[in-house]
Amino acid sequence: MERIYINELKNYVGKEATVAGWVDVRRDHGKLIFIDLRDKTGIVQVVVSPKQEKAYEALKECRPEWVVRIGGAVKKRPDNMINPDIDTGDIELEAKEVVVLSQAHELPFEKNAELNLDTYLNHLPLTLRTERARDIFTLQASVIAAFRNAMSEEGFIEYQNPVIVGGDAEGGASAFQVDYFNDKKAFLATSPQLYKQMMVGVFERVFTTAKIFRAEKHATTRHLSEVVQMDFEMGFIKDHEDVMNVLEKTIRSIVSSVSEKHASIFSRFKTDAPLMPERFPRLTLREAQKILENERGMQCNNEPDINPEEEREICRWAKEKHGSDFVFITHFPTAKRPFYTYIDEKDKAYSKSFDLLFRGLEINSGSQRVHDFDELVRRIREKGLDPDTFSFYLQAFKYGMPPHGGCSTGLERITARLLNLENVKEATLFPREINRIDTLLSE
Amino acid sequence: MERIYINELKNYVGKEATVAGWVDVRRDHGKLIFIDLRDKTGIVQVVVSPKQEKAYEALKECRPEWVVRIGGAVKKRPDNMINPDIDTGDIELEAKEVVVLSQAHELPFEKNAELNLDTYLNHLPLTLRTERARDIFTLQASVIAAFRNAMSEEGFIEYQNPVIVGGDAEGGASAFQVDYFNDKKAFLATSPQLYKQMMVGVFERVFTTAKIFRAEKHATTRHLSEVVQMDFEMGFIKDHEDVMNVLEKTIRSIVSSVSEKHASIFSRFKTDAPLMPERFPRLTLREAQKILENERGMQCNNEPDINPEEEREICRWAKEKHGSDFVFITHFPTAKRPFYTYIDEKDKAYSKSFDLLFRGLEINSGSQRVHDFDELVRRIREKGLDPDTFSFYLQAFKYGMPPHGGCSTGLERITARLLNLENVKEATLFPREINRIDTLLSE
Repeated sequence: MERIYINELKNYVGKEATVAGWVDVRRDHGKLIFIDLRDKTGIVQVVVSPKQEKAYEALKECRPEWVVRIGGAVKKRPDNMINPDIDTGDIELEAKEVVVLSQAHELPFEKNAELNLDTYLNHLPLTLRTERARDIFTLQASVIAAFRNAMSEEGFIEYQNPVIVGGDAEGGASAFQVDYFNDKKAFLATSPQLYKQMMVGVFERVFTTAKIFRAEKHATTRHLSEVVQMDFEMGFIKDHEDVMNVLEKTIRSIVSSVSEKHASIFSRFKTDAPLMPERFPRLTLREAQKILENERGMQCNNEPDINPEEEREICRWAKEKHGSDFVFITHFPTAKRPFYTYIDEKDKAYSKSFDLLFRGLEINSGSQRVHDFDELVRRIREKGLDPDTFSFYLQAFKYGMPPHGGCSTGLERITARLLNLENVKEATLFPREINRIDTLLSE
Repeated sequence: MERIYINELKNYVGKEATVAGWVDVRRDHGKLIFIDLRDKTGIVQVVVSPKQEKAYEALKECRPEWVVRIGGAVKKRPDNMINPDIDTGDIELEAKEVVVLSQAHELPFEKNAELNLDTYLNHLPLTLRTERARDIFTLQASVIAAFRNAMSEEGFIEYQNPVIVGGDAEGGASAFQVDYFNDKKAFLATSPQLYKQMMVGVFERVFTTAKIFRAEKHATTRHLSEVVQMDFEMGFIKDHEDVMNVLEKTIRSIVSSVSEKHASIFSRFKTDAPLMPERFPRLTLREAQKILENERGMQCNNEPDINPEEEREICRWAKEKHGSDFVFITHFPTAKRPFYTYIDEKDKAYSKSFDLLFRGLEINSGSQRVHDFDELVRRIREKGLDPDTFSFYLQAFKYGMPPHGGCSTGLERITARLLNLENVKEATLFPREINRIDTLLSE
């Protein structure tokens, strides 16, 4: 009989059906064997009695994670046996035919045990099979799909950003080196920035979901060597607020999409869908610092940036005052932002830049960009960089570039904040960090 | 006045409107100045007479690729002035107000000149603005979107494949090395193979659009250092034919989607939408070789693979005999395929593997995979590899893996064949190759 998915079983009550999947749990109750069978759509209880001799013998052997195909009769459970926690809680499958597709070794730990992070990461091919991990990466797939949909609706076109680059674009010291051909050195992209700007010259509005790489020597809960950024860049803007408006619309679209699709995931993580008032609050850095000082008793000392503790506090403020889980901080000091950031004409010490904070964490950073060729060359020099190393990129500006801007959302960060995960590594399928590529890197 | 897109102008005949974009071409006819203005949606003719003094002076200065905003009156052209080749060929804009947003230096060559490949690649920020390049990458964006849609409809879930890996997965010698932390070496992924198999254990059906990297020392028309693969992998299959069925459906879906959306691009490239009979022809390698020998007079000598000239010839055969631009070749010798390839029980010299050829080029390669842990360890050893280096991956099999298979489509290759591009580099936005990362790598 053709295999059906477990979430289709409810249409087969009183009939026969065949399902296939992994043995999630096995329980022996007296002479009956109970199995929770798991496939991509859900879990169902399978029961077999010794009367079904062959099926019984087969299921008696089975242990967690064995892969089996089971045919049998789909029955309504008695009222007092209904499990309201799962979709198929009111039915069960009485096994008649069992085929073992694949055996499994004994598990190194109970599958749903609370594990320390290293044990969890050491066993990802197994631990990713837990409901918790599958929830996280199901939600993440929806986030990225919703991002792309929102972008397409706004007339943005997707492009593929290069990973191997010739130089460390922004002049930071954190790019990984690659042995290229003929003893040449190349680097892994630390950002899609330069390419997405060039692409504005081609398509005006572009987006990309790009892998980026930072040789971060910090082993914190928010640093990873390899992450996914959801970037967009748009031409013919008035200023950075146009970018913020598209970003806000995109974030709303992502949040609505995942809230609707994944209500059950949010409930299992005991988090609510994010609060979004009609307009996300927008504060300049200096306004935010004044609020932190006057209303929250913090000392900001006119610092050129906002630190993690201040980020969390201003987010609490935005939630209390504006019912918002999101808050924009704008106008960071020019000196603290990269060379391509547009300077505010009204006060040149500040730039037309912004961060978007979400539940205490910066998840997006953006700005209007310099579009004038001469100004851009001047700004590159001012940062102590050599315009010659940017000659390829600079062509875009030499040959006519509109006023433009863009921003970048961290996929892992937004996923982590949506589900209130403590460590961004939990929101990364196969995290790369200073001490680990899949397995721990021994000394 | 709010900017509208050029393709909206037709709704403004008899009214005023403001558009913005790049000066594509400028022509002076007597006292009138004509400009073709280009934005993301199209091209429109702008005309200005000396009577509009300020606008005239501004447009007199303009040269190709200057970025301008132009307001004026939208008029129907006289019948004898209609240009049937462009969407807006029956209207023009009489400029009244012109704002120069950005100037451009003189171009190094005529924008639509036929360039040799090196000149084209040296100037991508400019040359990507040609209609030809924009067509290619507009189509490519649609290919990847159609792939994702087709996958979602078949119940596949997207995952993000890692780029930095700990070892050269398939034991080839073509992986780039990365300087990781603490003098450790890492590699760039040559394929998402091992991860997508692990993900079958998690979600059964997964897909990814992954960057992969090969240190190919060949400077041919089909080798690149960095490409995009559209991969999927699926559990609970009968054999490789199940994978081929999903692939065929996906390819149909991509072809239908782009043929419908981009008829004008196909016509500009003088190519037809691909021919697809009810079922793509499926030949074993040995059958294909027999056809080449008996019907096409070639000598195949029982070779373990099919060479590029034979690929082209069997594609011509498929087109003539079956009206198909696609043909599957199956059952490549076991010895020639990677360790994870499933061996055909009926004849162990051959594997349950396939290639999909499209207009003379292999665009996809796939197979059923080994799912039994012990068999997989044996196969790894047989290839002279050390199972210990695969311990992370092997967990997926140790803890229960269903029969599964998958395949991988080259995004650049399918794009190149759809538009009959001679060189796959033309189908790559910023190609990386032995001698080039953006600019030529000097010795």
